[in-house]
Amino acid sequence: MKKLFAEFFGTYWLVFGGCGSALFAAGIPELGIGFTGVSLAFGLTVLTMAYAVGHISGGHFNPAVSFGLWAGGRFDIKDLIPYVIAQCSGAITAAATLFFIASGKAGFAIDNTKAGAFASNGYGSFSPDGFSMASAFTVEFVLTMFFLLIILGATDKLANGKFAGVAIGLALTLIHLISIPITNTSVNPARSTSQALFTQGEPLLQLWLFWLAPILGAIVAGIIYKNLLQKNDSE
Amino acid sequence: MKKLFAEFFGTYWLVFGGCGSALFAAGIPELGIGFTGVSLAFGLTVLTMAYAVGHISGGHFNPAVSFGLWAGGRFDIKDLIPYVIAQCSGAITAAATLFFIASGKAGFAIDNTKAGAFASNGYGSFSPDGFSMASAFTVEFVLTMFFLLIILGATDKLANGKFAGVAIGLALTLIHLISIPITNTSVNPARSTSQALFTQGEPLLQLWLFWLAPILGAIVAGIIYKNLLQKNDSE
Amino acid sequence: MKKLFAEFFGTYWLVFGGCGSALFAAGIPELGIGFTGVSLAFGLTVLTMAYAVGHISGGHFNPAVSFGLWAGGRFDIKDLIPYVIAQCSGAITAAATLFFIASGKAGFAIDNTKAGAFASNGYGSFSPDGFSMASAFTVEFVLTMFFLLIILGATDKLANGKFAGVAIGLALTLIHLISIPITNTSVNPARSTSQALFTQGEPLLQLWLFWLAPILGAIVAGIIYKNLLQKNDSE
Amino acid sequence: MKKLFAEFFGTYWLVFGGCGSALFAAGIPELGIGFTGVSLAFGLTVLTMAYAVGHISGGHFNPAVSFGLWAGGRFDIKDLIPYVIAQCSGAITAAATLFFIASGKAGFAIDNTKAGAFASNGYGSFSPDGFSMASAFTVEFVLTMFFLLIILGATDKLANGKFAGVAIGLALTLIHLISIPITNTSVNPARSTSQALFTQGEPLLQLWLFWLAPILGAIVAGIIYKNLLQKNDSE
Repeated sequence: MKKLFAEFFGTYWLVFGGCGSALFAAGIPELGIGFTGVSLAFGLTVLTMAYAVGHISGGHFNPAVSFGLWAGGRFDIKDLIPYVIAQCSGAITAAATLFFIASGKAGFAIDNTKAGAFASNGYGSFSPDGFSMASAFTVEFVLTMFFLLIILGATDKLANGKFAGVAIGLALTLIHLISIPITNTSVNPARSTSQALFTQGEPLLQLWLFWLAPILGAIVAGIIYKNLLQKNDSE
Repeated sequence: MKKLFAEFFGTYWLVFGGCGSALFAAGIPELGIGFTGVSLAFGLTVLTMAYAVGHISGGHFNPAVSFGLWAGGRFDIKDLIPYVIAQCSGAITAAATLFFIASGKAGFAIDNTKAGAFASNGYGSFSPDGFSMASAFTVEFVLTMFFLLIILGATDKLANGKFAGVAIGLALTLIHLISIPITNTSVNPARSTSQALFTQGEPLLQLWLFWLAPILGAIVAGIIYKNLLQKNDSE
Repeated sequence: MKKLFAEFFGTYWLVFGGCGSALFAAGIPELGIGFTGVSLAFGLTVLTMAYAVGHISGGHFNPAVSFGLWAGGRFDIKDLIPYVIAQCSGAITAAATLFFIASGKAGFAIDNTKAGAFASNGYGSFSPDGFSMASAFTVEFVLTMFFLLIILGATDKLANGKFAGVAIGLALTLIHLISIPITNTSVNPARSTSQALFTQGEPLLQLWLFWLAPILGAIVAGIIYKNLLQKNDSE
Repeated sequence: MKKLFAEFFGTYWLVFGGCGSALFAAGIPELGIGFTGVSLAFGLTVLTMAYAVGHISGGHFNPAVSFGLWAGGRFDIKDLIPYVIAQCSGAITAAATLFFIASGKAGFAIDNTKAGAFASNGYGSFSPDGFSMASAFTVEFVLTMFFLLIILGATDKLANGKFAGVAIGLALTLIHLISIPITNTSVNPARSTSQALFTQGEPLLQLWLFWLAPILGAIVAGIIYKNLLQKNDSE
């Protein structure tokens, strides 16, 4: 049960910090944090929570990570559904908090005809910089695949494991530095779901891609890591 | 006594570095550091001092942190008042130094009718981006609660504790990335007090919120951590 | 063989993340990540992969690094050619993926008469800020030399080696912070080759400099480290 | 002798990377790295070299650091002059390299009537944002004092010493985030000297302050650390 609370709070923090920084601070004229600041924020949510509750739940905070660790032989399938439910619950609770805070500014409204509304993910005309569905699928697949390669590698028993939280958190920063203009960056179905539920409209209809591409990428990473990269004890 | 000197210097550095970067470097046209730079500065004050004097005093530098660690069962209540006094003394001395340095530029004056004057915190018309008191209270409460969850988790005896200074410092960076536009970010009553004392006017009248919300959030985090997250030795 | 897969994936990630962030996110008006974000991205590709696969292949991801480690007496010459082939293969595969993703935006085309097209490196009129061939050669030589001094030093058996991934990754960030305006920053012949192959034209004709200067700098670093800096066990 | 080579190369890198990023990349329209990028660059020079050659020379790269460590009882006075000479030699060689690279761009010239020319330090009309000599002296004194408190604390035998390179490097980043607009940030007499020698004019006449204030601040830090903060083994 403590594991599930850890996943709940960790994913809450990921959405509150990452999407919150995007909503409140990215676009302030002159002083705003821009995509660099948002990328840093997403990465730091994971870095900070990895050191805070990683020893409790493993620190997934993302259904794709749970799927990838299962595919890589590091996570028991019986925990998969409870983890995903805890993650989505945390994400949705965070989005509700963000909605409440955002509504405390005069003139607040979510315009779901615009790309990236309420920090939602999208492709085509809902891609921040107008990238196609194929580009969006490819970038989400590749980035989640590498995210999992980094997670599987950095937590390998032969690796320098104490730094895993730094490497994994900053990997998420890097992922955002690359892809915010393409899909507003997901690589995390829970984060996409929470924002789409509050945005409704087209972003909700496009949500399928942000479950399918990240989870496929994560599973492929699990297979690649086990078969092409992982050293046996005897090597 | 060495503990109190460590808290004095640590909180001095937090205010001097964090508020100093905001005052001197944030808004320079074209080249200024903006909210991202200020967020980084606040976080690095804590990261650097945590490794410098953390082994002396525990490295709180913030009354809310002392309250939260007490609620989490990690800090003796008899040290609480001396720590808070040392922290506020350090903060106020730093603000005085900033005032002296700032006054060495022609035309310096604190306009306390403007949000964020002399790096002060505020809500309503004193929120940098115009957020209500309820939004301000919520964001300060939630952010301090998570700040303490990270502190309690990263310093747990089962955690990878040598990274606590990195995780905690960068958590403060993250917190600023989210909330500078909402309250100018406090999560630290000592930091709010020092700036309000020099700003006077409305920011001083709003100071109550920046004691109440952070300390409440910190105490709730202590209760959550002990009851929902902390593993017993036998688990 | 696992070593070569690790070098393939690591160099793929370096090009995909570093050049990808430059292509997709650097120049977005108002919100773009600029040279700071691109610098961070390049560094984080190496930091993340160093912790992920460093225990498998040593984590070179760069022919100049392999040459420099050989010159410093840390890498067997029989592995040199296989490593360089794996690195270039990874880089070219990444560039192909970037090309596919980029082509999913309306109006995509590579204009190889412009400095920095498709994140290519160059000098003279192909230097982003108009620096001469001599300046370009010097900066690539000096930066790769120091990159290797840092790699050789941070992985020395007397050094605090667990931090090598942090130091080496952030060294690449630093290198980009200095030199993007001069050559668009290479210090890595594989990264230059992959982008020049897709750009064609003048950037491909200038490719020689981005093999010669980095490899020379790396070899000089190996010689300096062994002779002027490295402590013997008895010292 | 290896110690002195380490200080030479380390200080070369500090000036080449820190001042180089300021000269080449800070002010590029739209994409430039600004003061945040320059601050990051200075800090990363020290972070990277601390892990690369810290085990050889201690990693000072700054005459004020050598003075402060002497005052704190950690550095033998017989090494002081050789270290300072090695540091200044490295800094001046780096400035010469920067001068050569910069001269490879059409129209290059150093206009020493402007604040911050060739990354020089200054006060009064040579302060980037017009701060007085008193403000400049104060900020250089306070920042160097805290820089040394962090160095002395993070390398204390009771501290978590493996992180000292991270804490000290990022302390220099923080210092720059605060004070570039005030003095263009020195806290390092070698760095000020190298740039002033190439700039000549008023910046050279103001050089005294950038030796006096940092060294005084460093010595005061040594005294404070020994007497108010340092724990004895028996405590």
